[in-house]
Amino acid sequence: MTTTTPQPAQSPQPDPQLGAAVKAADRAHVFHSWSAQELIDPLPVAGAEGSYFWDFEGNRYLDFTSGLVFTNIGYQHPKVVAAIQEQAGKLATFAPAFAIEARSEAARLIAERTPGDLDKIFFTNGGADAVEHAVRMARVHTGRPKILSAYRSYHGGTATAINVTGDPRRWASDTGTAGVTHFWAPFLYRSPFHSDSEAQECARALQHLEDTIVFEGASTVAAIVLETIPGTAGIMVPPPGYLAGVREICDRYGIVFVLDEVMAGFGRTGAWFAADHFDVVPDLLTFAKGVNSGYVPLGGVAISGAVAETFAKKPYPGGLTYSGHPLACGAAVATINAMEEEGMIEHTARIGADVIGPALHEMAARHPSVGEVRGLGAFWALELVRDRETREPLVPYNASGAAAAPMGAFAAAAKKNGVWPFVNMNRTHVVPACNISEAEAKEGLAALDDALTTADEHTV
Amino acid sequence: MTTTTPQPAQSPQPDPQLGAAVKAADRAHVFHSWSAQELIDPLPVAGAEGSYFWDFEGNRYLDFTSGLVFTNIGYQHPKVVAAIQEQAGKLATFAPAFAIEARSEAARLIAERTPGDLDKIFFTNGGADAVEHAVRMARVHTGRPKILSAYRSYHGGTATAINVTGDPRRWASDTGTAGVTHFWAPFLYRSPFHSDSEAQECARALQHLEDTIVFEGASTVAAIVLETIPGTAGIMVPPPGYLAGVREICDRYGIVFVLDEVMAGFGRTGAWFAADHFDVVPDLLTFAKGVNSGYVPLGGVAISGAVAETFAKKPYPGGLTYSGHPLACGAAVATINAMEEEGMIEHTARIGADVIGPALHEMAARHPSVGEVRGLGAFWALELVRDRETREPLVPYNASGAAAAPMGAFAAAAKKNGVWPFVNMNRTHVVPACNISEAEAKEGLAALDDALTTADEHTV
Ligand SMILES: Cc1ncc(COP(=O)(O)O)c(C=O)c1O
Ligand SMILES: Cc1ncc(COP(=O)(O)O)c(C=O)c1O
Repeated sequence: MTTTTPQPAQSPQPDPQLGAAVKAADRAHVFHSWSAQELIDPLPVAGAEGSYFWDFEGNRYLDFTSGLVFTNIGYQHPKVVAAIQEQAGKLATFAPAFAIEARSEAARLIAERTPGDLDKIFFTNGGADAVEHAVRMARVHTGRPKILSAYRSYHGGTATAINVTGDPRRWASDTGTAGVTHFWAPFLYRSPFHSDSEAQECARALQHLEDTIVFEGASTVAAIVLETIPGTAGIMVPPPGYLAGVREICDRYGIVFVLDEVMAGFGRTGAWFAADHFDVVPDLLTFAKGVNSGYVPLGGVAISGAVAETFAKKPYPGGLTYSGHPLACGAAVATINAMEEEGMIEHTARIGADVIGPALHEMAARHPSVGEVRGLGAFWALELVRDRETREPLVPYNASGAAAAPMGAFAAAAKKNGVWPFVNMNRTHVVPACNISEAEAKEGLAALDDALTTADEHTV
Repeated sequence: MTTTTPQPAQSPQPDPQLGAAVKAADRAHVFHSWSAQELIDPLPVAGAEGSYFWDFEGNRYLDFTSGLVFTNIGYQHPKVVAAIQEQAGKLATFAPAFAIEARSEAARLIAERTPGDLDKIFFTNGGADAVEHAVRMARVHTGRPKILSAYRSYHGGTATAINVTGDPRRWASDTGTAGVTHFWAPFLYRSPFHSDSEAQECARALQHLEDTIVFEGASTVAAIVLETIPGTAGIMVPPPGYLAGVREICDRYGIVFVLDEVMAGFGRTGAWFAADHFDVVPDLLTFAKGVNSGYVPLGGVAISGAVAETFAKKPYPGGLTYSGHPLACGAAVATINAMEEEGMIEHTARIGADVIGPALHEMAARHPSVGEVRGLGAFWALELVRDRETREPLVPYNASGAAAAPMGAFAAAAKKNGVWPFVNMNRTHVVPACNISEAEAKEGLAALDDALTTADEHTV
């Protein structure tokens, strides 16, 4: 294990005056994602390094969110920073219709790591447009209109991506005309199928999926889009056999199988791709985030030979100005090489299995608010509940304001302990940098452990 | 005029072997936008500086395309390269929910330059997602479903953006269920309204738009989306009064007016925004490309006070991981400041009015293949025709393969003369870097002049 996580070189210099100016300009001019603009209070952040970031007041936080689960190699990794600086000095940008060294090399390194014959890489700017283009490829490839996706899922904010999404962020954009049908994926802890074992949940979920396809009309279904391991929706590791079963159903009905690895890919689960754990090869695989740890916006679709063949002689009807952006691709090359050189994949697998997982299970035994611990690698969820018996969530589905207060109190307690937690509905996710050190992980877990006593107060 | 365009510091070193390797990896692994993958032959590009780029064989081209009309400040501008390097070393990336210096500063600089009260900036990764989010804002703000947009337009490749688009790239994705109605914008040279003057074209186009709204049902129309000056579709400068008339219609019917300045904005037309030429303020203005010359992927929406108010207490239902990306925003800050310091806006206005425009008009007089010259600043189109009388295009609408050969021959001739031309259907656009020097512009125009003799051969 050669992974090293850099520590902040010097203690950050507080500069409250600059912080106030940054905040004032933000409040005057920055319109933030998914937010009521006057009800938010964005923390001004001065800097970040490795697993930590700090504000302008001198407060430092251990980041248990990896941003929005994208800084897989932590902040300011020196090799990736140097590569960006070098590529910027050489060729920062160039149009997509040309062959560019960083673009070619990034595509080669990604294609070498994606499973099976996913050997052609279409580059986008992020996760949402990766999903947009995967769906378009599937529709044109099959000539069929409908997409099947899971209720507990997130796939991005543009029109198709948000309609494929299963979480409440879809509602405001759902006109019911998008050609998307949602189904239920396996989730034993809150089983949609009343199962009492993983094997039963798997069998019933596959039956449900196949029944849905038959009743929708297989000849109308272009693709099944699934997160290999649903991320924002709760890190539900699918039961053994489920994804292989979906693959088999797709083959039987001529449906394109799209795995969305925007969050789960590039090391997050202790493998290059989450699909590697299940020995399954989709027809299209979407990625973003970890591909270059978000140092420069980049996403993409890895494409199978069969789908690529559809667009060999006939134009693919999609594109974007920054497809294969040299600076973004240069950052991807450096990130992938750093992950390889520093043994980050193995490190993540080990720290998940030996440190984070055991600690979370041990904490769950002590905290009545923890209903379930799920995950692997640097990808864990704690399901917080009011009642372990009934599994009633600590806050209702999609709660906001006062109804969400118990989760807010938990998050505030974690921050007071120096850990920035990932909170979604009634869950906290433990999703630190994949190269977090054992000592840092333990420091963060201890802080969470303490914050959970706040959540315990809301149990019955 | 203090603008300087750097020349390549040293003559590029040819390296055909590296070029071949870059090409081989591209052909093996890179899936290109809008292309039949086996029918393209991407030129390997080794480097670029100012208005020029060069391949691995030692061939240098004057870029009359600015990439896809985005490198407004040319390639490798030293101030922007330095700013990217500095921001990369300081804080390359951070999640969108925080206040970050580069993000705040970019928003402030943009808001200062956008017309009217477009003072809140929602950042995206590029042009398509800017349009996606503008449309969503309009739909939620009005509670109405439909979008009206022009047939001769391009707005991007994601689901909503491609449906709003009016060019043939829409067809493969058009399910007819997207809630978009296309109308005809003014274009005197090929008037949809049989007009014989600019004033008549303006009046008839406004009448047509209003009639379309009345028959669609004003209460169903959320937004009118227009490129201020349509770019890819042909650089049709709207007649005086048209955009003010659209503004008035929008006000009368409570419709959100969206101006798409992804291509026309940030100096392209010799003004910060093309809307400045027409003294019109939209409710939403989309941008990308020129905001940082595409050095790092960035786009966004500038939002009026009234639309922002809708999302003051109620969440805006959209977002993305890289909204307000620090590296992209840092590049925008440096780009805007460089454009200001170097007087680029004034330079562009002048070079368009004094050099490019007159030269193109003079060439048109000599070349029977030139049907019309249109444009301003660094934003010009030549409409190539078989017959000046009938205005029959040199190649048919959306021609490909053999039918498009005359345009292919023209492009090949330009390249042989050392100029990389922008070609779309029967048009060539003269869209160089906005800070192109007079000498460079003249060099490129002479090369085009010569290449037009190839086009002349296909006239009747
Ligand atoms: C699985 C998955 N797909 C797609 C997306 C959308 O990515 P982006 O925010 O870059 O558009 C996300 C973002 O969290 C994601 O987790
Ligand atoms: C006017 C306009 N809008 C939107 C877009 C889409 O931008 P992007 O390719 O960055 O998605 C373009 C791209 O050319 C454009 O010219």
